[in-house]
Amino acid sequence: MLIIGELINTSRKKIREAVEARDAAYIQQVAKDQEAAGANYLDVNCGNMVGQELEIMKWLVETIQQVTSMPLCIDSPDESVLKVGLSLLKPGYQPMINSLSAEQKRYNAVIHLVKEFKARIVALCIEDAGMPKTAEDRLRIATGLVQSLENDGIPQNDIYLDPLIKPLSTNDYYGVEVLNAIRLLKAKFPEVHFTCGLSNISYGLPNRGVLNRLFVVQTMTVGMDGYILNPTDKAMMGMVYASQALLGQDKYCTKYLKAHRKGLYVM
Amino acid sequence: MLIIGELINTSRKKIREAVEARDAAYIQQVAKDQEAAGANYLDVNCGNMVGQELEIMKWLVETIQQVTSMPLCIDSPDESVLKVGLSLLKPGYQPMINSLSAEQKRYNAVIHLVKEFKARIVALCIEDAGMPKTAEDRLRIATGLVQSLENDGIPQNDIYLDPLIKPLSTNDYYGVEVLNAIRLLKAKFPEVHFTCGLSNISYGLPNRGVLNRLFVVQTMTVGMDGYILNPTDKAMMGMVYASQALLGQDKYCTKYLKAHRKGLYVM
Repeated sequence: MLIIGELINTSRKKIREAVEARDAAYIQQVAKDQEAAGANYLDVNCGNMVGQELEIMKWLVETIQQVTSMPLCIDSPDESVLKVGLSLLKPGYQPMINSLSAEQKRYNAVIHLVKEFKARIVALCIEDAGMPKTAEDRLRIATGLVQSLENDGIPQNDIYLDPLIKPLSTNDYYGVEVLNAIRLLKAKFPEVHFTCGLSNISYGLPNRGVLNRLFVVQTMTVGMDGYILNPTDKAMMGMVYASQALLGQDKYCTKYLKAHRKGLYVM
Repeated sequence: MLIIGELINTSRKKIREAVEARDAAYIQQVAKDQEAAGANYLDVNCGNMVGQELEIMKWLVETIQQVTSMPLCIDSPDESVLKVGLSLLKPGYQPMINSLSAEQKRYNAVIHLVKEFKARIVALCIEDAGMPKTAEDRLRIATGLVQSLENDGIPQNDIYLDPLIKPLSTNDYYGVEVLNAIRLLKAKFPEVHFTCGLSNISYGLPNRGVLNRLFVVQTMTVGMDGYILNPTDKAMMGMVYASQALLGQDKYCTKYLKAHRKGLYVM
């Protein structure tokens, strides 16, 4: 299981304010909180800081690295920003890039960075024709992506496919299509990993937290092994630990029992 | 989804006391509560009333039928008790029997009642050699059961396989073996249904309610479509409705939204 902490993102109001004020202590605390909560990587995204993204990425990476040696996941739509972020990373772990897709222009812009930095890569199931709807769409796009990445020398084990989660409120099959896609992809590419952001699934429905948490349980059941989420959300992390125990991924239920003692269960 | 309400069982202290006092009003209220909460069948079990089981089954069935026409699931290890319960049922629905197994003596004792009453049947994955451990054990036992039942003229659609859930605390693979068994059986017998009691999974671990509820979400994800549970447990029923919505089994999320308005979400 790979938990990518999502909190350091300037689309979040408090992070944006801290960035604008160059409030290093606040950013550092958010980094440390996510580390303490059990994240494996910290996502760093300032993609909405138009015109300043490059400079802010630099500041964020340096600021975070002053207080933690947590692995970072550099997240940007702009390959020059990705490159600057990656270049500043301290050695000692495999960097992660968020993201490329099957869109030809985007793929070509990012693949050379994946190679240069020997990075793990989040690969979005989006193609030039647009977003996927069905499980078959995702299978087609992901198959092309994995084949391209392997041709470019990236091992399956470094690939984190994001099947793209769309709101259930717009189509009541959007959840099950993702579950079926993961099942099909897992059978086809047993070495490949998966990751996704969850909150889209519940957009427009009540009890969003419940739906998000249940979708973690469901996607884990069919083989998803990575999430971009808020690791300080105890109820969500409780779902992850309890699901791992039930799925036989937690020897003697040790992590579950430890999480219990820490009071991680809100359900 | 078939919810079998589990509350009318003399292994529950309050039910036993009500039965001993022949407190019809109490039993009738428990029946009505389960009906209101959305159960599809009510299980009726007095198997621990040694020496009086037959007489009490008769009283229970008559008492319940005075206030509701809910379908009943007659539950006993004794075929003469099953027969008396089934004989008293008012017409208008397909009765259900809980249970037979692949143990030869038990199978032979119950199969003629399944035929005579054209009943739905809970078929436990237990054989003369004992309880199953692995997914393969369950596949072998269930395959034999389904074949025997079909040879005896019972359609797959009337069979509710119970894969037998054992405590995760005794073996950390006991959850995933059940999930794998359901997947394999669903692929092999697409018309067959499933049911199970859940609480064994969490025996000996903390936060039992959390584990039971998550195991509902996980088993539904791989195809389980029936549970013997307490339908008045709002948190549990909330799991069922939310999971159905995410699994594309709830057109326009109607049931989910209705359950939301009723406040069924405790998670």
